[in-house]
Amino acid sequence: MIIILKENADSVQFDALKDWLTKQNVTLHISEGIQQTIIGLIGDTSHIDIDIIKQFDIVEDVKRIQEPFKNANRKFHPLDTVVEVGPGVKVGGGSFAVIAGPCSVESEEQIIAVAEAVKKSGADMLRGGAFKPRTSPYSFQGLRAEGLRLLLEAKKATGLPIVTELMDLSQLDLFTDVDVIQIGARNMQNFELLKQIGKCDKPILLKRGLANTYQELLMSAEYIMASGNQNVILCERGIRTFETYTRNTLDISAIPALKTLSHLPVIIDPSHSAGIARFVSPLSLAATAAGADGIIVEVHNNPSCALCDGAQSITPPVFDDLMVKIRHILPFRCKINA
Amino acid sequence: MIIILKENADSVQFDALKDWLTKQNVTLHISEGIQQTIIGLIGDTSHIDIDIIKQFDIVEDVKRIQEPFKNANRKFHPLDTVVEVGPGVKVGGGSFAVIAGPCSVESEEQIIAVAEAVKKSGADMLRGGAFKPRTSPYSFQGLRAEGLRLLLEAKKATGLPIVTELMDLSQLDLFTDVDVIQIGARNMQNFELLKQIGKCDKPILLKRGLANTYQELLMSAEYIMASGNQNVILCERGIRTFETYTRNTLDISAIPALKTLSHLPVIIDPSHSAGIARFVSPLSLAATAAGADGIIVEVHNNPSCALCDGAQSITPPVFDDLMVKIRHILPFRCKINA
Amino acid sequence: MIIILKENADSVQFDALKDWLTKQNVTLHISEGIQQTIIGLIGDTSHIDIDIIKQFDIVEDVKRIQEPFKNANRKFHPLDTVVEVGPGVKVGGGSFAVIAGPCSVESEEQIIAVAEAVKKSGADMLRGGAFKPRTSPYSFQGLRAEGLRLLLEAKKATGLPIVTELMDLSQLDLFTDVDVIQIGARNMQNFELLKQIGKCDKPILLKRGLANTYQELLMSAEYIMASGNQNVILCERGIRTFETYTRNTLDISAIPALKTLSHLPVIIDPSHSAGIARFVSPLSLAATAAGADGIIVEVHNNPSCALCDGAQSITPPVFDDLMVKIRHILPFRCKINA
Amino acid sequence: MIIILKENADSVQFDALKDWLTKQNVTLHISEGIQQTIIGLIGDTSHIDIDIIKQFDIVEDVKRIQEPFKNANRKFHPLDTVVEVGPGVKVGGGSFAVIAGPCSVESEEQIIAVAEAVKKSGADMLRGGAFKPRTSPYSFQGLRAEGLRLLLEAKKATGLPIVTELMDLSQLDLFTDVDVIQIGARNMQNFELLKQIGKCDKPILLKRGLANTYQELLMSAEYIMASGNQNVILCERGIRTFETYTRNTLDISAIPALKTLSHLPVIIDPSHSAGIARFVSPLSLAATAAGADGIIVEVHNNPSCALCDGAQSITPPVFDDLMVKIRHILPFRCKINA
Repeated sequence: MIIILKENADSVQFDALKDWLTKQNVTLHISEGIQQTIIGLIGDTSHIDIDIIKQFDIVEDVKRIQEPFKNANRKFHPLDTVVEVGPGVKVGGGSFAVIAGPCSVESEEQIIAVAEAVKKSGADMLRGGAFKPRTSPYSFQGLRAEGLRLLLEAKKATGLPIVTELMDLSQLDLFTDVDVIQIGARNMQNFELLKQIGKCDKPILLKRGLANTYQELLMSAEYIMASGNQNVILCERGIRTFETYTRNTLDISAIPALKTLSHLPVIIDPSHSAGIARFVSPLSLAATAAGADGIIVEVHNNPSCALCDGAQSITPPVFDDLMVKIRHILPFRCKINA
Repeated sequence: MIIILKENADSVQFDALKDWLTKQNVTLHISEGIQQTIIGLIGDTSHIDIDIIKQFDIVEDVKRIQEPFKNANRKFHPLDTVVEVGPGVKVGGGSFAVIAGPCSVESEEQIIAVAEAVKKSGADMLRGGAFKPRTSPYSFQGLRAEGLRLLLEAKKATGLPIVTELMDLSQLDLFTDVDVIQIGARNMQNFELLKQIGKCDKPILLKRGLANTYQELLMSAEYIMASGNQNVILCERGIRTFETYTRNTLDISAIPALKTLSHLPVIIDPSHSAGIARFVSPLSLAATAAGADGIIVEVHNNPSCALCDGAQSITPPVFDDLMVKIRHILPFRCKINA
Repeated sequence: MIIILKENADSVQFDALKDWLTKQNVTLHISEGIQQTIIGLIGDTSHIDIDIIKQFDIVEDVKRIQEPFKNANRKFHPLDTVVEVGPGVKVGGGSFAVIAGPCSVESEEQIIAVAEAVKKSGADMLRGGAFKPRTSPYSFQGLRAEGLRLLLEAKKATGLPIVTELMDLSQLDLFTDVDVIQIGARNMQNFELLKQIGKCDKPILLKRGLANTYQELLMSAEYIMASGNQNVILCERGIRTFETYTRNTLDISAIPALKTLSHLPVIIDPSHSAGIARFVSPLSLAATAAGADGIIVEVHNNPSCALCDGAQSITPPVFDDLMVKIRHILPFRCKINA
Repeated sequence: MIIILKENADSVQFDALKDWLTKQNVTLHISEGIQQTIIGLIGDTSHIDIDIIKQFDIVEDVKRIQEPFKNANRKFHPLDTVVEVGPGVKVGGGSFAVIAGPCSVESEEQIIAVAEAVKKSGADMLRGGAFKPRTSPYSFQGLRAEGLRLLLEAKKATGLPIVTELMDLSQLDLFTDVDVIQIGARNMQNFELLKQIGKCDKPILLKRGLANTYQELLMSAEYIMASGNQNVILCERGIRTFETYTRNTLDISAIPALKTLSHLPVIIDPSHSAGIARFVSPLSLAATAAGADGIIVEVHNNPSCALCDGAQSITPPVFDDLMVKIRHILPFRCKINA
């Protein structure tokens, strides 16, 4: 961390600042230039609150050099984290995990039919929403507890591990048999929730917020990891940009970027990124080619009748064709730090 | 709501769509052009899920004409909502409410000293954070329950109603004597939280999310109001833009815009908007001139030693000077729909 | 186009509006609802200025249904445009064009060495900047006329067609022997420039602006095409988002989106998108898999000594490896409307 | 400027970097930490191209400490610049300049009627567009040369100095009698244009681009000033954000921010910011209260018949009322660095 002082900084305040800094267990390296004095902090600065430094009147600017995340940082953990989801099902470390299923669980018939279809095409896990975050209180809010029960039926029927979203701590007891807990984009900075799920040992699929940076995503992963749970899967699901033709804008560079900054696996959600079914395959193949550790994709056996997000769901035959293409591309894609 | 069909739309699907629409209690008005057919929906469309319509294959686009919020909509409630916070303390309806206090409660001495200072200058309410949302798990997380206790001491000492942030439903029991519950920007779309606080009758100060639109803010207000609580105060606290010189970018147009769209009071947080103490007064005066119903501003008796956000806190003398200027400007400011 | 009137719209103004509209050669279709009247315009609305309609006091909102671009619209030109650049060199229609070369032309040795290297690996065209748009007046501004001369030397030496940027109309005379004129992102809405280059018949590579939408890009293409030049190649080169780890954010969805909306070829610039050399290959492969018509990529024989943008340039061996991977992926990629 | 090297940086490259840096007329201050080496550059770094440093393989990051602009920097020119536009008409230094007039010049009657009306209410200058940048080639492009002629008639009739937009260098000869040349938002980074208008001595009103930062705006001012013309007026006219209810989002903080960073005057365009006539007065008063050096506002005598942007134009009576309110607020507004 580097602290740039204002010109002619008051020496009493300078002493107070030096005093505060040395209490943070870092060594100070002070360069007094003709116009400006610069303080370099040497040591672990991840615990230092940059805002406290900024409130010293004599400070003009503070620049972080070390990333503020440690557990999630590839610099301190060079090897890829491999999250084990179930027998033979892993995310990270060079494999490619495919999570597929409907946006919402709607009925036993629906979820089992989709689960069987995606399993046949080679999916590794089943997704399906029981608790649904919806912008409008008047929209379908998911089958909730009943939806979870149906997902578990589908798991029993097919053997596929299940991935589903937790929206509030009060729902946590219902998630005992869920294999991967998803934290949605709107909850990425629900810090109380992150702290609590950090105390369980289930894999967490953490979605990037609509307008959050890589560093903010990794700081949210850090919340979970600092509480004890290292099984975090990062998910890029499209960010908000000025373009509204697509629902969100897939940030494909998040794949090499997050895998450079962190050892955690990175998967892509092409369905929420695009919001348009016919864009799901191009984006999935792009994610494959760019080195993603997997995708989470919406598949519905009858998109026109879906209770939620049908416009972005692909059908089982399209999914099957996509899986074939993915397998062809996998051998020639890029590897980042593997 | 207007639905634009693709060219040469299949008639079987067209019938299915018309069938679904008529079940939504709206009347259809169909215009068959040479190239495209357009369906106009007449009646209350606020409960119709636009995404379900989009998943009919024959639909090219859907445009909402009526706003999707009802309780918060000025069209249905032309008069300003006035939120009563305590004896003689109101927000909305032409008055100007000033909420002031430190970012975080740090000690009994601190909170009482600041409370007395801001009261003397004319503040109407005391703010202070007990539960603090912080990007890093390694930053100060607030005094939590103890912070709430100290806020109540300051309320007792000064008579000022208190405003403080609720981060999770599990904290709700501690908020019995809090006068206004603040929902932070990062929780604006924590829908489970919104539903539950909609069941209490306390005033809610709802902050706009960093990258959310007016309509999304009003839909979140709608969640609270649809659950029964009509006492919602909207708060613009700066949005994320490409400019990083300021912490966020104050959207000053939110004042006339939200007051046009809704009858709810609109206040401004100049401190989190700017992140720079010397910008707080200019932005507060701008908010006053533009017609805001109040401001929520950070005041600290010793900003250099604040545990959080000191860089954006003004001192009691600066606050006092600001209050004088506000009183001069108030008679000449704009009124929107008052 | 659909015009939504305010409630209880004044009938004199309504007549004035109808009068104005009928002069625009469209047929009106008026639906008088209980609360609101809606006017549908039937016919070609691309020439109607939406802002003029909005200034009628009785108008609440106007929604465009037809896209405002015609020449660039796939609806009116279903077949892919194929831009012929030179003998055997085409962009669009299912082929994959690779444009490679240094950010700036620096010397005859440099540009010829890079040209020969990229040709050997299979590049179809040579890129190189002579006139350089730089944020700072103190940065290297390109070799200008001399840079163009050197590019033409490299063309002579290798036979590769050349692509280079035109910054101002005053430079146009120098571009006689240039094969493709590039219009940079910052000039995407330099409308006087677009009109003039629309009068020549050279292929134009039009880069999307940093914060522009697909529709704005297509309207800029429309400026060129309306002036007579149909040879437009669209280029996505990364948009500005809140993420600053990468120089810009590649909008990979622009590929299927622009190819759905338009018949013009779409290429990707992975170098300016990422700003980081090691991300260029992953992004190039992603673009290939997603169905792009080509890439424009920075290659430098000695990136550490480049006068501009060396940090994002790949070396000839990395480029060669990328070309091999692209050829493997091409057969399995997605096709949009081909 | 501070350069952070990668861990275990190669010493040959380190020597090459030091060698290059010393040629830039700066002194190096090297801190070799346990993990990382940091180089501080002491001296004038505004001419150093940060991108060239980044392309040295051993460089992890470069942080600028000094701003890259000099002529526009308040640090080197503490006193406010006052731009003299005509006899008794000044912008900057504590006064408040009001520029008013229609979006486009439409006819001699129109421009003279508006000029007389705004002069009567106290406007200092007349605005009016002759060359109009329009997103669509099919929209009204302005009266062009004839529009300029009519503006000069209005100047003759009222004595008001005129402000109008230059879109391309080829139009420059027509601007001899124009008092202030406006450079529009879309041309803010048209660097060839900036260089050329820097060679004349007329006041330049430079509008901030839709998605540009303060620093980029100041670097564009620097282009003009480095060419010799110091008479630059900065204009905030609304930035693009996710909110589309308003045409753009007025960044009110640009007033204190730009006036802190620079000595140049800062004015606000509330009309293009809002795009809605009834928001123009609230935003103008906000700008006044926040310390702006003036406003440029659209006034039209018959907004419903304007050929361009009528929806955002206020009428002469509304403008007159606004001027009265501005005069009341001026004595109590904030002053930045005055």
